[in-house]
Amino acid sequence: MTANTSDPHIRLRERLRRVYLLRSSLGLLDWDQQVSLPEGGAELRSEQSALLAELAHQTFVSNETREALEALEETDPAPTSDRAVVARLTRRDYDRAVRLPARFVREKTEHLNRSYHAWTRARADDDFASFAPFLERNLELAREEAGLQGYSKNPYDYHLDQHDPGIDTEKVTVLFGELREPLRELAGAILESQEPADPDLFRGFPVERQEQFARLATAKIGFDYKRGRLDRSVHPFCSGDGRDTRLTTRFFPDNPLDSLFSSLHEAGHGLYCQGLPIEDCATPLGEAVGMAVHESQSRLWENQVGRSRAFWTYFGPLYREHFPEQLRHVPDDALLAAINRVSRNPIRVDSDEVTYNLHIMLRFELERTLFDGNLAVRDLPGEWNRLSQSIVGLEPANDREGVLQDIHWSSGGFGYFPSYTLGNLIAAQLWETAREALPGLEDGFARGEFGPLLEWLLKTIHRHGRRFETDEIVTLATGRPLSTAPLLRYLRERYLAPHADRAKV
Amino acid sequence: MTANTSDPHIRLRERLRRVYLLRSSLGLLDWDQQVSLPEGGAELRSEQSALLAELAHQTFVSNETREALEALEETDPAPTSDRAVVARLTRRDYDRAVRLPARFVREKTEHLNRSYHAWTRARADDDFASFAPFLERNLELAREEAGLQGYSKNPYDYHLDQHDPGIDTEKVTVLFGELREPLRELAGAILESQEPADPDLFRGFPVERQEQFARLATAKIGFDYKRGRLDRSVHPFCSGDGRDTRLTTRFFPDNPLDSLFSSLHEAGHGLYCQGLPIEDCATPLGEAVGMAVHESQSRLWENQVGRSRAFWTYFGPLYREHFPEQLRHVPDDALLAAINRVSRNPIRVDSDEVTYNLHIMLRFELERTLFDGNLAVRDLPGEWNRLSQSIVGLEPANDREGVLQDIHWSSGGFGYFPSYTLGNLIAAQLWETAREALPGLEDGFARGEFGPLLEWLLKTIHRHGRRFETDEIVTLATGRPLSTAPLLRYLRERYLAPHADRAKV
Repeated sequence: MTANTSDPHIRLRERLRRVYLLRSSLGLLDWDQQVSLPEGGAELRSEQSALLAELAHQTFVSNETREALEALEETDPAPTSDRAVVARLTRRDYDRAVRLPARFVREKTEHLNRSYHAWTRARADDDFASFAPFLERNLELAREEAGLQGYSKNPYDYHLDQHDPGIDTEKVTVLFGELREPLRELAGAILESQEPADPDLFRGFPVERQEQFARLATAKIGFDYKRGRLDRSVHPFCSGDGRDTRLTTRFFPDNPLDSLFSSLHEAGHGLYCQGLPIEDCATPLGEAVGMAVHESQSRLWENQVGRSRAFWTYFGPLYREHFPEQLRHVPDDALLAAINRVSRNPIRVDSDEVTYNLHIMLRFELERTLFDGNLAVRDLPGEWNRLSQSIVGLEPANDREGVLQDIHWSSGGFGYFPSYTLGNLIAAQLWETAREALPGLEDGFARGEFGPLLEWLLKTIHRHGRRFETDEIVTLATGRPLSTAPLLRYLRERYLAPHADRAKV
Repeated sequence: MTANTSDPHIRLRERLRRVYLLRSSLGLLDWDQQVSLPEGGAELRSEQSALLAELAHQTFVSNETREALEALEETDPAPTSDRAVVARLTRRDYDRAVRLPARFVREKTEHLNRSYHAWTRARADDDFASFAPFLERNLELAREEAGLQGYSKNPYDYHLDQHDPGIDTEKVTVLFGELREPLRELAGAILESQEPADPDLFRGFPVERQEQFARLATAKIGFDYKRGRLDRSVHPFCSGDGRDTRLTTRFFPDNPLDSLFSSLHEAGHGLYCQGLPIEDCATPLGEAVGMAVHESQSRLWENQVGRSRAFWTYFGPLYREHFPEQLRHVPDDALLAAINRVSRNPIRVDSDEVTYNLHIMLRFELERTLFDGNLAVRDLPGEWNRLSQSIVGLEPANDREGVLQDIHWSSGGFGYFPSYTLGNLIAAQLWETAREALPGLEDGFARGEFGPLLEWLLKTIHRHGRRFETDEIVTLATGRPLSTAPLLRYLRERYLAPHADRAKV
């Protein structure tokens, strides 16, 4: 039932509650598809999901929603009040939702479905040419969508803004421009100073014990398992709301660090979900700012916290209790060195926290040039390889390890990649501020105390929902606009300083 | 989108497809609630489920559905054609759905929710009096519902028919009347002839190995794990459709037979789901006949098949491979005796296949008398205990083990209990016919061949969906109307004949 009330704020919240219930049900169907669905159920699930998405959209763009929104706007609430924030951000979402005709949404959905399957085949066959026509159409559709939203002159800005409110091409260009050379130099210096890796260091870590330890570590940093779960999936992810937050990870017996840091990463996302104000979950006040801020939370817990010496001072002995045999011949310094190892890897998702950002800059350059019209899809593999050499420092052996490696472009996810590095920048900036604001923070980690950092993040980031845009919330939390200096300082301190963690456990 | 076609059969099927997608999504949410949901997610889940149920109902009773149904009826299709069956049964469901006003459905849902919680507290406290007012209201609501559906003179018939089309009080009274004394005598004779049980026979069966064996056995009898799963829940159940059929069971280290026979039971339900015609899943042609026929499938695989000597000729050695230590001191005859043990147990769900039916007759007598008006709720515990003595052969120690033991009445599930024993009757009758129709059936079981029985059930039961009513499909499958003789013959042969399985493995 729609609430029968004269307060338009309550009426609007009731409409948004129905949309939220449909979207979160759809979210559960998606989670189940990746975690539990037997192969026979794929077609049924795709029909179920399509119907729920259709109903969620219809409910959101309905006359009832519009009328409640207009009535709320007419009350002209005080600009920083909850009502004003709900009205402003719902208006933004509503207008963007109604500007896309049903015909366009249907065509895009159907094309992206075909495009995704074409990409999986092309990647398996290392055959970019077979995927190129799909990618060309994906780009056309992305430009058309931006045009429908009023961004016909700067379509890439629309896609950046969709992921991270307030972020545009200019901002990313400036930040990445500042970051690129110092980061390349830093990566080079670390690679020169590193001991060679021992490829046989980690062998035979039983998956059940890995899972136990992942639960222990994520619970210890604050993830509440009464309001969440950890399961297995091919690609780790986090979904759900603060009362039912679902993390997934994957386990490899000979690569225990992959699963552990995936778990910490997803738990970082999960802590953000669990920290959003639950009473506002169906409104913008209970939503995340965007992808970059979400990623800042996952990266901060994975990297700044999870790869620190202090973290391992506490967890090292527990890790050895879980894997006494497997770690017998791994000294503490070798363990921490492996946790903080830098390497040139052609694959983005297998990269360390330093070179990862070089992969993102490569993708940003290519996306920007594709949207400018200065790069044709047929020239993309060559340009990928050329830029990969100059930015990442290596050329991929083939397109499967190069231009075909990521799912994003096959699914229309343009403008998403920059969020990862923006997230790293935000994480480092928050980390620098938190260390100043919370004296003895890392001494606490060494004693297993992670509550003070989580409380600080709750207060500075989580509690605000989507009230502020990306740059605004960073400025409010840290006192400075988003910049590249904290990430460079953090990486230099951790990887190059004479007292670097890596060298002296 | 609604299909834009002039064929009303296609238009109706498209409406039913949307209802089915919403109901099956709701089914997944319910499955997840029992298998995966963290406790913090309960309130969110209940709101999600309520909205999906509301939308499924609205979609079903919508004008579009009614118009397509009326148009299909006007084409006057040949009476046994698919179109006629879809029209006739959708009309039945549609009329029943629209006869219940939204106000009534809402009040009933809310009351049953409170009633369920009152029952869980009352059972924990062994305090029937605190539950009695809720049960009285449940009965009033059940009478009111029957009245709205045109059954004000025979309300209990409505509830029987809701579970099993074509079944009424008269039919159940006749069948149960025939069954009662022979079954009581049979139970007494078996109890006299049985060796005493060894309470320590089964100890320390690792849960993971039990789960492996349950998967092996259910797959071997034909459950397709590419179209299904087996998970754990507090109460075993089966849900989903034929492409995604989900079984659950539970595991106790010291009671491995409970989990195994629960798994076989649920797999029997699952085989029925997987055997229904998937292309008609959204219409009555792809639905189960009712609860009794569903139960006949689970009981047949659990009891007639799973407790047979032939089954254990094949599975016994595999069971011993899974539990070599635990079964070392359990001879074959003791294992089969434990599998076919009869006992007087106050708890229905812990009862054997013989005395279980006595529990059902007790409940049927009480329900019938409650609906007649010849029994008041306040007198129910006394009447339960009196009838339990005379039918089941024992008096429960308290109401927790007596009148408060079952969930059904707390949730408004009147008329459901008889389905269990009707299912046992149907299972025995199908079994008798299958043995005649398929010579060497049990010799095949002993070689691990279960396909012929499943094929026969597919052909005689599964493929017909809801085309026939309960008694009709039994008559078609077995050549005779439903009767009690096959169950009594089956139980006498298995438990009392000189060559009884139990005595001579």
